Amino acid sequence: MMALEYDDDIIVIDAGLLFPEEDMPGVDLGIPDITYLVQNREKVRAILITHGHEDHIGALPFVLPELDVPVYASRLAHGLITVKLRERRLIRDARLNVVEPHSPFRLGRFHIEFFRVCHSIPDAMGIAITTPIGTVIHTGDFKIDHTPADGHSMDLAAIARLAGDGALLLCSDSTYAEVKGYTASEQVVGEALDRVISEAPGRVMIATFASLISRMQQVIDAAVRHNRKVTVVGRSMSNNVKMATNMGYLSAPPDTIVTMNEARRLPHDQVIIMATGSQGEPTSALVRIANGVHRDVEVEQGDTVVISASPIPGNEKTVAKTIDNLFRQGANVIYSRVATVHVHGHASQEELKTMLGLVNPRYFVPIHGERRHLVAHANLARSMGMPEEDIFVLEDGDVLALTPEEGVVVDKVAAGHVFVDGKTFWDMDSTVFAERRRLAREGIVVVAATLSTSTCEVLTDPEIVSYGFVELDESLELFEKTSKKVLTLLEEMGASVLTLDKARARVRDSISKFLHSETGRRPTVLTVIEYI
Amino acid sequence: MMALEYDDDIIVIDAGLLFPEEDMPGVDLGIPDITYLVQNREKVRAILITHGHEDHIGALPFVLPELDVPVYASRLAHGLITVKLRERRLIRDARLNVVEPHSPFRLGRFHIEFFRVCHSIPDAMGIAITTPIGTVIHTGDFKIDHTPADGHSMDLAAIARLAGDGALLLCSDSTYAEVKGYTASEQVVGEALDRVISEAPGRVMIATFASLISRMQQVIDAAVRHNRKVTVVGRSMSNNVKMATNMGYLSAPPDTIVTMNEARRLPHDQVIIMATGSQGEPTSALVRIANGVHRDVEVEQGDTVVISASPIPGNEKTVAKTIDNLFRQGANVIYSRVATVHVHGHASQEELKTMLGLVNPRYFVPIHGERRHLVAHANLARSMGMPEEDIFVLEDGDVLALTPEEGVVVDKVAAGHVFVDGKTFWDMDSTVFAERRRLAREGIVVVAATLSTSTCEVLTDPEIVSYGFVELDESLELFEKTSKKVLTLLEEMGASVLTLDKARARVRDSISKFLHSETGRRPTVLTVIEYI
Repeated sequence: MMALEYDDDIIVIDAGLLFPEEDMPGVDLGIPDITYLVQNREKVRAILITHGHEDHIGALPFVLPELDVPVYASRLAHGLITVKLRERRLIRDARLNVVEPHSPFRLGRFHIEFFRVCHSIPDAMGIAITTPIGTVIHTGDFKIDHTPADGHSMDLAAIARLAGDGALLLCSDSTYAEVKGYTASEQVVGEALDRVISEAPGRVMIATFASLISRMQQVIDAAVRHNRKVTVVGRSMSNNVKMATNMGYLSAPPDTIVTMNEARRLPHDQVIIMATGSQGEPTSALVRIANGVHRDVEVEQGDTVVISASPIPGNEKTVAKTIDNLFRQGANVIYSRVATVHVHGHASQEELKTMLGLVNPRYFVPIHGERRHLVAHANLARSMGMPEEDIFVLEDGDVLALTPEEGVVVDKVAAGHVFVDGKTFWDMDSTVFAERRRLAREGIVVVAATLSTSTCEVLTDPEIVSYGFVELDESLELFEKTSKKVLTLLEEMGASVLTLDKARARVRDSISKFLHSETGRRPTVLTVIEYI
Repeated sequence: MMALEYDDDIIVIDAGLLFPEEDMPGVDLGIPDITYLVQNREKVRAILITHGHEDHIGALPFVLPELDVPVYASRLAHGLITVKLRERRLIRDARLNVVEPHSPFRLGRFHIEFFRVCHSIPDAMGIAITTPIGTVIHTGDFKIDHTPADGHSMDLAAIARLAGDGALLLCSDSTYAEVKGYTASEQVVGEALDRVISEAPGRVMIATFASLISRMQQVIDAAVRHNRKVTVVGRSMSNNVKMATNMGYLSAPPDTIVTMNEARRLPHDQVIIMATGSQGEPTSALVRIANGVHRDVEVEQGDTVVISASPIPGNEKTVAKTIDNLFRQGANVIYSRVATVHVHGHASQEELKTMLGLVNPRYFVPIHGERRHLVAHANLARSMGMPEEDIFVLEDGDVLALTPEEGVVVDKVAAGHVFVDGKTFWDMDSTVFAERRRLAREGIVVVAATLSTSTCEVLTDPEIVSYGFVELDESLELFEKTSKKVLTLLEEMGASVLTLDKARARVRDSISKFLHSETGRRPTVLTVIEYI
């Protein structure tokens, strides 16, 4: 998410969500912290969406209730947003608008024109925003593919025209700025898939992202060429195939797409199964197939499985495990490390330089990607001769003020992310996450005792309960000893203990030490001491 | 770990440890399940060690107390094992032997000869084991580097001689069997490091594996060439530099290696800092530097940091975060994605085929690596014309019986791993891990109440304690409501409840539902109900 402000007008670009990280266990998702926008609510004119991926639209259900502004998006992104808002019963109040490339419109002091870019979802766009002091070119996510699967290559000439004699500012996708050369075209993938399908002796299962409509089109095209039918498993992919077909983003000759029941009646060498699970998601179709627990599909000798995706950072291990398990089931597995069955959707260094050259901006802000990607992108601009002081590697919340004369980071506002867990919103350094990490490492032991208020006598044997600490057979003897230890402790303290808090702390510390000496582990110890 | 058995003789090759995975939170490490070897204790003649990496020697402190057998290892591995056993006071009973390449010896019916291979630690070896029915060639971890940093290239002719007219069995490293072509030589890295150091305007910090002695030598050589001194931070690396220097694996002109205090007095462009932390280990020197909390080293403008390592699978995110933070601190960071400052130590496809061709085995068992790597390696052998029935992709525990006529998997014995957590050994599917994963996702709530045995009356307000579930400010009101809810529940149950277990279960279920409706989360609920 990024905001552009001029006088009394603010426009927002994208409203994506962050997928949770391991060090924030239990979190459902992260959404942008929009404190600044809420404080300046009356200035915000619109949210402009570059494309329909979750990390660009996923936060809208959380943002729109706070900011009642219109949303502008391409036709496909509009479709995906509609589904999302309908699920949460937010559609009635939403003001959604479809924009076409090169159909300019005005928002306050801003003049907006979307332009087409290539990316791993159809209808991806960049945005040219003309302000009173010059034009801002925001690329969105992009790569320069001259032979994309959907035939919509990037209109480089249009971008040059929008930038005019040089834009004020370029904000450009940095996700693959570390990678030399050019990103391969979707055409290469189409050819690889065609070869795999033509050579496969039996069924072919192909897993990819549910939003990668163009990949599905490539699969369908290859299916037709090689006399196969396609069946789709996995809810999100089935829904997207239906939606994309209805909206005209996916086309298949009649009877090419069949149900699982129909597919089952066909010879194996006439079947392609498209499935979700390319990221090793535990409940996905592919992972259930890999684990031999899918309701409809069981791997057989002669099956070929294609993982037409690469692992999103953090998913490497689950994807690898899925591949291993598919091999164990007897499939021949083809994945991006062994064949070009996937290319990603982001520009590499030569494409990024082409964009910089085309737009020829006064100022440059590399966007999208981690710090190292932004720095790599900044280095590219520097290598092209752009002055150091015109390049800004920003952190979330940095406020960059631009005039035709200079650019200065003038302020830092609340930004970053808030994390959604059930109905609660937490910030990154919530103690809850530290506690959960601790619980995961060592488990927990609860020590409960009841004392007499008058005599400080211990009224029953202290009770010990644990979770994630020991197995049952190990626990009986250990907990008996622990209970005795607590009893002794409390009796020793006797009337000398003045406050409940002190008694609790003393029991907790002693029992922690005791359990460590017995087991070599340090569970979290909670003490519950009641006085009656 | 692998065992070869002939009549009444068993020899074991390597005894490594497994680094814990995310889905087994809290585990210190995994060690091989040696049930079969313990059952056949009297047959085991020795453990042969191919090289000194943790995943080849790390389990010895756990294995040797169970199997009192001699260990044979190269000089460096011997040194590393000695340190390890001394730390655990196991050295006195250990029978450690140093072996040199091509100094054959006998163990029961086996005739053993070690041979030199290239890998990312000095003194790595493969083993030729001649049995009454033919020779087994076990490569250990290897790559074919004709220009290694330590000058010891692989003696391909010796391997051919050991294999004779064709070995009975080749067991060969599969870790990089997915990768086409050749693994680059260490020479390439030496050149890249030299260039980085010669061009760096200020200090250079270089992080690598503490066991990658040859890389340290390359750094020292470049330091000498460019008039820099080297200082080492991080305990494990300091220890290894000392050990390697004493044993002659590392050589530096006098005064090249200096203390941190001495380095501090030098101009920045005369300093190289070698550090641990190339895997983003939270307590390592590099990570503390990246987070700005290292005692001795603070990043300054002009510093260059080189990550001379690639992330071990699973560490991708922590390494990336470290790089991002170093950039934030103002360093110029150079890592394997942007320059050839690291090559790994395993053979790629063309080298693996060279090994297959050189040894020309009757049977082939791809070893080291996950299932997908073994399958890729098997495919290479197949592509070279080896018959399907002579290639065995095995799982841990598979017993392969070989005769000159045929190979058959005849049995499956207990194998796999056991996991060490403090003083306890757990197997993979222990309930403890499932409980910990659950705790990490949602935290825990403890409900404690004391009832009267005679009247079933609730004697105090039920107490609610939580961990990893809510923040303090959120908890007060919620827990007051929860306590009231428990009170009502218990009072309603009253005398009707017969058993403590039933009361507990009923409270647990109701409170789980209540907390979910209040917070949208599902913490683990533990109930402690005592009768007085």
